[in-house]
Amino acid sequence: MKNFTQISAEKSARPVDKSWFAIITVVVFTTLGCNSFVMASTSPNLVITTTDVKNMRSAIKQDGQFKQTFFSNKTAVDQQMAQAITVPVPKDGGGGYTHERHKKNYKLMFDASIVYQLTEDEHYADYVRDMLLNYAELYPSLPVHPKRKIGKQNPGKLFWQSLNEAVWLVYTSQAYDLILPSLTSAEKEKIEQGLFRPIVKFLSVDSPKTFNKVHNHGTWTTAAVGMTGYVLGESEWVEQALYGLDKSGTGGFLKQLDELFSPSGYYNEGPYYQRYALMPFVTFAKAIETNEPERKIFEYRDGIVLKAIDTTIQLSYNKLFFPINDAIKSKGIDTIELVNGVAIAYGLTGDASLLDIAKQQDQILLTGDGLKVAQALDKNLQQPYQFDSVAFGDGNDGKQGALVIMRQNVDGEQAVLFKPAAQGLGHGHFDKLTWQFYDKGEEIVSDYGAARFLNVEAKFGGRYLPENKTWAKQTIAHNTVVVDEKSHFNGNVKMGNKNHPELLFFDKDEQVTISSAHIDSAYDDVTLTRTMALINIPSLAQSLVVDIFDVKANSKHQYDLPVHYKGQLISTNVDLDTNLTSLPVLGKDNGYQHLWLKAQAQPKAGLSQITWLNKNGKFYTQSSIMDGDTSLMLTQIGANDPFFNLRNENGFIYRKSNVENHTFVSVLEPHGEYNPSKEFTLNAISKLQTLSHNKNNTIDIVAISFSGNKRYLLAFNSAEKSKENQLNTFSFNGTKYQFNGRFKFFEIKK
Amino acid sequence: MKNFTQISAEKSARPVDKSWFAIITVVVFTTLGCNSFVMASTSPNLVITTTDVKNMRSAIKQDGQFKQTFFSNKTAVDQQMAQAITVPVPKDGGGGYTHERHKKNYKLMFDASIVYQLTEDEHYADYVRDMLLNYAELYPSLPVHPKRKIGKQNPGKLFWQSLNEAVWLVYTSQAYDLILPSLTSAEKEKIEQGLFRPIVKFLSVDSPKTFNKVHNHGTWTTAAVGMTGYVLGESEWVEQALYGLDKSGTGGFLKQLDELFSPSGYYNEGPYYQRYALMPFVTFAKAIETNEPERKIFEYRDGIVLKAIDTTIQLSYNKLFFPINDAIKSKGIDTIELVNGVAIAYGLTGDASLLDIAKQQDQILLTGDGLKVAQALDKNLQQPYQFDSVAFGDGNDGKQGALVIMRQNVDGEQAVLFKPAAQGLGHGHFDKLTWQFYDKGEEIVSDYGAARFLNVEAKFGGRYLPENKTWAKQTIAHNTVVVDEKSHFNGNVKMGNKNHPELLFFDKDEQVTISSAHIDSAYDDVTLTRTMALINIPSLAQSLVVDIFDVKANSKHQYDLPVHYKGQLISTNVDLDTNLTSLPVLGKDNGYQHLWLKAQAQPKAGLSQITWLNKNGKFYTQSSIMDGDTSLMLTQIGANDPFFNLRNENGFIYRKSNVENHTFVSVLEPHGEYNPSKEFTLNAISKLQTLSHNKNNTIDIVAISFSGNKRYLLAFNSAEKSKENQLNTFSFNGTKYQFNGRFKFFEIKK
Repeated sequence: MKNFTQISAEKSARPVDKSWFAIITVVVFTTLGCNSFVMASTSPNLVITTTDVKNMRSAIKQDGQFKQTFFSNKTAVDQQMAQAITVPVPKDGGGGYTHERHKKNYKLMFDASIVYQLTEDEHYADYVRDMLLNYAELYPSLPVHPKRKIGKQNPGKLFWQSLNEAVWLVYTSQAYDLILPSLTSAEKEKIEQGLFRPIVKFLSVDSPKTFNKVHNHGTWTTAAVGMTGYVLGESEWVEQALYGLDKSGTGGFLKQLDELFSPSGYYNEGPYYQRYALMPFVTFAKAIETNEPERKIFEYRDGIVLKAIDTTIQLSYNKLFFPINDAIKSKGIDTIELVNGVAIAYGLTGDASLLDIAKQQDQILLTGDGLKVAQALDKNLQQPYQFDSVAFGDGNDGKQGALVIMRQNVDGEQAVLFKPAAQGLGHGHFDKLTWQFYDKGEEIVSDYGAARFLNVEAKFGGRYLPENKTWAKQTIAHNTVVVDEKSHFNGNVKMGNKNHPELLFFDKDEQVTISSAHIDSAYDDVTLTRTMALINIPSLAQSLVVDIFDVKANSKHQYDLPVHYKGQLISTNVDLDTNLTSLPVLGKDNGYQHLWLKAQAQPKAGLSQITWLNKNGKFYTQSSIMDGDTSLMLTQIGANDPFFNLRNENGFIYRKSNVENHTFVSVLEPHGEYNPSKEFTLNAISKLQTLSHNKNNTIDIVAISFSGNKRYLLAFNSAEKSKENQLNTFSFNGTKYQFNGRFKFFEIKK
Repeated sequence: MKNFTQISAEKSARPVDKSWFAIITVVVFTTLGCNSFVMASTSPNLVITTTDVKNMRSAIKQDGQFKQTFFSNKTAVDQQMAQAITVPVPKDGGGGYTHERHKKNYKLMFDASIVYQLTEDEHYADYVRDMLLNYAELYPSLPVHPKRKIGKQNPGKLFWQSLNEAVWLVYTSQAYDLILPSLTSAEKEKIEQGLFRPIVKFLSVDSPKTFNKVHNHGTWTTAAVGMTGYVLGESEWVEQALYGLDKSGTGGFLKQLDELFSPSGYYNEGPYYQRYALMPFVTFAKAIETNEPERKIFEYRDGIVLKAIDTTIQLSYNKLFFPINDAIKSKGIDTIELVNGVAIAYGLTGDASLLDIAKQQDQILLTGDGLKVAQALDKNLQQPYQFDSVAFGDGNDGKQGALVIMRQNVDGEQAVLFKPAAQGLGHGHFDKLTWQFYDKGEEIVSDYGAARFLNVEAKFGGRYLPENKTWAKQTIAHNTVVVDEKSHFNGNVKMGNKNHPELLFFDKDEQVTISSAHIDSAYDDVTLTRTMALINIPSLAQSLVVDIFDVKANSKHQYDLPVHYKGQLISTNVDLDTNLTSLPVLGKDNGYQHLWLKAQAQPKAGLSQITWLNKNGKFYTQSSIMDGDTSLMLTQIGANDPFFNLRNENGFIYRKSNVENHTFVSVLEPHGEYNPSKEFTLNAISKLQTLSHNKNNTIDIVAISFSGNKRYLLAFNSAEKSKENQLNTFSFNGTKYQFNGRFKFFEIKK
């Protein structure tokens, strides 16, 4: 087979009808009944196939998004190719010159090789060939990278870490595959011997630990080696990529698919890292599907690759990913990894709702799948993508807690993100059972995300800021209970990874989505149980979020429950003792050292209400049941921040001290509209009038009334053994009520 | 004529061909050669004419924006007409029930009467008639309003202030005009005797002070009386409206046109109040044009009404008005007053660039002009509206200072607003020579605007907050020099109104827009002179704002120059002494009591640089020349704010103490891009390397160099007598330079 590759790819007098050639190649191999997969015999044959090329060549002659994108890419490639080829000896670490140059080189080779295939202009192939020959000269002479971080990351040769080397190879193997028809056997020999074989050896047998690691770095490495294996016809490399170096299946791509995602395709580190992890999974899977469809890789583990793509989409609101854990908040569904994922998924499934996402991504890929997307969008074939209320089980078995999303459409889309999820490794935050709320396109109850200005040199070199650890990861930076001013697991990642919350239930009906979870390992002797419900009351044109946070311990503690809100404080129904001429800091460590104490209050027993105005023009009132012994603190982020690294966002904290048990009960109520442009303001004042919470054995009863004497009960049974069809009965105000299953929302008629 | 009106409008058996009727009416009068203007003889004949109606009736049968708007308005009218007519006895002040009801009533009558004309369904006319009859019953019995504010505002009867009464009549007179054909003479008699004649009497002869006032309130009143005069055929009322009660011309609409605008159509209180003032001007002018085209009202004072409309547009950036003085910052060109203005201006001029604005306004009026706009937009006839660099002279003579706008297009539109304008009456701020900067759609150097949450009851009843006076109006809340921590004119409005800055010059060439102004009356013995230039250097792809603020006094003072910036602080090149665990307040009064002192520094002689990142994704570096004796303070708004009424925005202040004279010299440099979504950051670091300022007689020389040894000189002559063609010569670093006129920007070749 290797022989055939060499012969068939001999340079011939141009023009060559390459599509015809590709067909013949396949026919020959089919008749010969060769090796189980046909490697590199047709070119290209990884993410892009010869059929794709044929369609793409035709598409760039017709008006449409694909043609537009192609010509704009070609112009960019032409500009870069006007410069001399530069393959510098590796010297600099991340962000440095040689690092960035080698990154640009793989991207340029990849782009130029596509232009070559589509234009059939060998000028582009020659440029890629010459750059590869440069690399083939250089690579064998390279030691490990001088800027490697010993003990921290596996070193590369072109780059300081092998991760970058693997990414480089994922792209460069594709570029090589695309220009193969233009090469002489001597050129191929030189490039393969000087570059591809040594780099594959370096990444696989010479780096067994990374290669076999069931981790995102392992995925890039196995993808790189496997894809190169397909191009060079090395089935052994493919086998190793799939099953680990020893081919036992304890490592490798399939094991990664087994372990790194939950059964529903949720990636343990959260959406920001999920979209990053997605790239090698979808790219290598596509290459496997092209070369060995009989492996049915997209059906593997009940379609885990497609599920992972879809779940990444579901983990977004208004185009941005939910910013849990270390997340840059402006990252969203238009990220290139998900553009690839959506294109490949659409190519496989033809699901028109994926086009809705593709349209919002507004980027066309120059691949066969990209063409399908472009043509479908040209024809406006997109159908609305359905964002659902889902509990994504966490961990490889889906049973290590869950990430819960509740959604409803009420005057714009609303979403509650509830997080009884696992720690999520080193980038995880100590935020068990935290929540966020989104309405009408905006964050309302927010998560800080990561403390980082990506690549901004002046901000700690563009890396995670020190405040990422001292603030963003700490429990007080989230909307969940802090015990004795200490973070969950005392801020210990190992402890966090060992333990996780339990999802008690997730359920929904037409009006209510509700979920409950608990954790008893975040603190030594404290159990945290939280139930959240997103409710819609169409008759009142009112939506609500109900929050019951139950804390139990065997000894006395201080319990803080913060709400980090986005907007301008409008009013409180309690008298504030505001610090007018001097602002003190709230605490000493675990994030408290970063909070200014702007005001405090001692609400009387009854309801404490805080109203703010979001930039979406709506008001939000949080009403909390007060026992007369809970204090309120209004805070702003920004203390102990010598270099102004933090955003000065606002929050409030309810504090209950010196008790064993406490239940925080609150309702978040969106209302009204502030429209200074049209000069009207509607319903700026909360309509919630009373709120109570009772426990009747295992049944919680939350009673809510609104002005006009509109009264409602939310009852739920959070007992672990409660079943869907269990009949629950309870009394409230002398009336008997009953419901089946987990919960019911009652409208009380008079 | 009155007779004819009564006869012609006798109810006749439906359907009536009204357009035919209208033509006959005109013909009859033309032949009879009646009174110089034809009043109410054709109906409608104010803002909407019978020809308009004919076209509009045809338009609602064809697809397009007009039809869409009509049916959506009709649905809204139908819904409201399903309720019983309610004309309550006036009782409540602004925002109260009866106040809001009477406001809704005029709007409903106006809308329903248009639906009547377009559908010819008398059901709508009857509803308006019945409501008018209700008013005609009620009005004669009314005393002045019980909630009037004695000594503060002229009272109304339906409303607490006569301003609302006049607004009510502007709309209701139009509604009456529109339903006239449906009324019997008895009905008309009753409505006119019971309602229109008494209300006109009340607003005119019974309220001579307001009626004759050359002020916005007077404009509404004269418009209301004059328009009613046209409908009822009372030419005397029209004459009074135009020339004042005594018809001497010392009051009335024409005097208001003479006095309230500058020759270029700038309204003294600034754009926020200009758009509000616009409504009665354009509406009454349109009614005059319809009834008495021979008055050539739109040509009056060199076309002042059209100039005022156009200037209102020019006073915006990215759809929002420049928020000088007491301005709600979200108010912009889509305000209904400007929708009216643009439609009427388009109807008169057919200027396709107005359609560009109309398209952005995205509101169609159900008038003849509205139809013209809608049909033109349906055909995509809009041409780009040209926003210019202009110095709008202030005051009725245009010589009382100026509001200067500088614009250029560099990677998005940039604008400098420089404000050597007059005080602008009671809503003016003490902000002489302040500036603002806008780039890529966003505020970069900002103005606080008004401290107010319009109509939000919890925020001081929705009125101007106490902090509007204690913060927003004070000098320190703006980007201009504060002497000895006191505001301009010591915060005295009368003093402010008596004095104004002088514009020294405004000039521009291809690369530079530059303006200079001074004022010596803001403080007793201090002269403030500021020169600002907006510069584009295409060869460097660099834009700049140069700011030279020269302060001179006869005794020693403390000079503070604040910059209120929008964004996140990225870096400073001076060591900050940041307050980490306790924030002190900056001062005691004149706005200083609202500033937290977040950090301070003592920059060495040389350049002090402060870089921030705006949400538009660009970096901004302000570089200031330091003399080693100027201190820097970083501040945040929010001290002494017990109810969280203020927005917590950031600023920095350069302070020079204990000197007679000082010149603040700085450059604002937009640079780079922060794109965390696509994961790149470009040019996050300032490229400005040196900055110097020299004075050579009356010539200021600012030398600027950028990395790569790119050197530039900005030279300008701000001597009052400098002429356009004056030859200026100066030496710099041993080289001689010369230029003609005010200024020149030199690129120094090596």
